[in-house]
Amino acid sequence: MKNDITRTHTTARMSKIVRHGDLVYLCGQTSSGTDFTDMAGQAAETLRRVDALLEEAGTDKSRLLSALIHIRSMDDFTAMNAVWDAWLPPGAAPARTTVQAALASPQLLFEVTVVAAAG
Amino acid sequence: MKNDITRTHTTARMSKIVRHGDLVYLCGQTSSGTDFTDMAGQAAETLRRVDALLEEAGTDKSRLLSALIHIRSMDDFTAMNAVWDAWLPPGAAPARTTVQAALASPQLLFEVTVVAAAG
Amino acid sequence: MKNDITRTHTTARMSKIVRHGDLVYLCGQTSSGTDFTDMAGQAAETLRRVDALLEEAGTDKSRLLSALIHIRSMDDFTAMNAVWDAWLPPGAAPARTTVQAALASPQLLFEVTVVAAAG
Repeated sequence: MKNDITRTHTTARMSKIVRHGDLVYLCGQTSSGTDFTDMAGQAAETLRRVDALLEEAGTDKSRLLSALIHIRSMDDFTAMNAVWDAWLPPGAAPARTTVQAALASPQLLFEVTVVAAAG
Repeated sequence: MKNDITRTHTTARMSKIVRHGDLVYLCGQTSSGTDFTDMAGQAAETLRRVDALLEEAGTDKSRLLSALIHIRSMDDFTAMNAVWDAWLPPGAAPARTTVQAALASPQLLFEVTVVAAAG
Repeated sequence: MKNDITRTHTTARMSKIVRHGDLVYLCGQTSSGTDFTDMAGQAAETLRRVDALLEEAGTDKSRLLSALIHIRSMDDFTAMNAVWDAWLPPGAAPARTTVQAALASPQLLFEVTVVAAAG
């Protein structure tokens, strides 16, 4: 097997971080779903997790290339954007897509899947 | 900060175009939602926007690698495909995925997220 | 036109395989929708199709980088995971995101969109 793919936090189901070439892929990140029941809290908790994984991968949120956001309800679109916009470094926003979808458990309101440039 | 990522039309929320290495990422593209209320019109308007952004990024629709399409209702699947198929250059279709999802505003029927090879 | 993109099974609508640089993109894969009416059967049939396309592209499931899974109902999440987990080679799981979405036809329960490293 070639040794050009680096995976971190790998289970039988998924890796939280996959690095290949100059790209870093994170698995879909959500909050715990229990610490916060509102979008503001869940989005902030989730983005802290993204920060931690990006740091572990040797990169950071200033190097995001794309973000696919799923939210449980578009009623939370404005609340989500407020957290998201404040989180991003000025001038470094990725290409983003946001759609509505039910997530893995009913209490989850926000999930983000990012691809970043390696550090 | 490394200078290997080029972003265009960047706000606090997202960039319309992100280029890194030999890949170009566009943010999810929709129609205005007001000029057209049917799928045929919205899909065509959206794809004109994709064309313009790809051109601005120095590439074009013959170099699409992947497309993720979200449509508000699968009732519009056939109408969407008619516009999509006619838009693509012969022999240059990307890998595509189409699923149903509610989009950022209720009047939006079609959104496409593409990754293209740089020109 | 540059000759750096290789497409396979290309129709007016999509290519099943697109290769560019060291990345392989597959179009969203589903089962036939008719051979199996349950998640276990549909997921297994779909993943056999993924295997065949990856092989045709000169790579395999040990080189998956990301997977975006859409399932018609989160009621099938556990059944889907059982098939998925058994299918992946140990230590080689990709970054994964799973959300609920209606697919192109009502009988389809599972769709997966993967990006893999070239072989």
